[in-house]
Amino acid sequence: MLILIDQDGVLADFERGFHTAWQAIGPRHGHPPLPLEERRSFHVRDDYPPHLEEAVVSVYTAPGFYRALPPVPGAVEAMAELLDLGHDVRICTSPLNQYRYCVPEKYEWVEAHLGPAFVQRMVVTKDKTLVVGDVLVDDKPDVTGACQPAWRHVLYDQPYNRHRPGARITWADWRAVLLAAGPR
Amino acid sequence: MLILIDQDGVLADFERGFHTAWQAIGPRHGHPPLPLEERRSFHVRDDYPPHLEEAVVSVYTAPGFYRALPPVPGAVEAMAELLDLGHDVRICTSPLNQYRYCVPEKYEWVEAHLGPAFVQRMVVTKDKTLVVGDVLVDDKPDVTGACQPAWRHVLYDQPYNRHRPGARITWADWRAVLLAAGPR
Repeated sequence: MLILIDQDGVLADFERGFHTAWQAIGPRHGHPPLPLEERRSFHVRDDYPPHLEEAVVSVYTAPGFYRALPPVPGAVEAMAELLDLGHDVRICTSPLNQYRYCVPEKYEWVEAHLGPAFVQRMVVTKDKTLVVGDVLVDDKPDVTGACQPAWRHVLYDQPYNRHRPGARITWADWRAVLLAAGPR
Repeated sequence: MLILIDQDGVLADFERGFHTAWQAIGPRHGHPPLPLEERRSFHVRDDYPPHLEEAVVSVYTAPGFYRALPPVPGAVEAMAELLDLGHDVRICTSPLNQYRYCVPEKYEWVEAHLGPAFVQRMVVTKDKTLVVGDVLVDDKPDVTGACQPAWRHVLYDQPYNRHRPGARITWADWRAVLLAAGPR
């Protein structure tokens, strides 16, 4: 199978990285970090009060933010296992509009956590419907774009996508759902 | 039509950028820049003597090299015309393994020469066969990867791809060849 894996929220733990960073600056803004289980919107900026938007955005557009994200527990091991099973695994990730640090640090993150050879497996695009695959694992509730996607979308479970029905996994429990259906 | 356009050698004039940079350091190495018409290999490092490989690579991996590339004459105007004609145009580009400056500077180049909205049209991937399109305009003689590509390959004419038969264009003469065949 050709398996597309989203990066942030699936491999790299954006939520935990943001939570930690906001703990450091939250007191300055009189707003503690939202507990992860209370996140409701795909974009973290939409879950904080509007007057804090600039501060929220400044956290994840700062140099070093993406590079320092911890891996989602089990993600690195799952990538190795998928390759061992003979699947073609690609990272399919959408950069921020503020690409300056985000884009190169996504590459650095993959090199640091999955190894230099995995960097060759990266596809960076705003529109994931342009990318061919049997399945896309993504935490975004609705992945849309210019094309009818070739892949089926399997949700990576996060508090902010639980309203969406359909197949979902975590790296603690993924084999049956991800691999059962087989190729298109 | 969904039209994929390679970046370096098609939109950004890698050849001219390298030639200019090598003029500055060539005397130090006792080797003048190769005239553009005498380039024979897709990878410029393969056209210089082996003992100069490190110097050649140092030119295009240096900070600022990709950002400073001049546009290929007519490329910017052609992109605007393709959009005006109602086509969906995407930039489909493969980064260097040495991604540190190359990747973010490809984004900066597109923003500077084609505008911020065009940045959203970028797809950065080592394997272009994963990307859906009706046509791919690329100067690389053979564009291969894991999939049977959906697109047909139209060569962007360069001295180093003239051995390859098939459809080819320059931005001085592209409309009939690029648009005649229509969508898949």
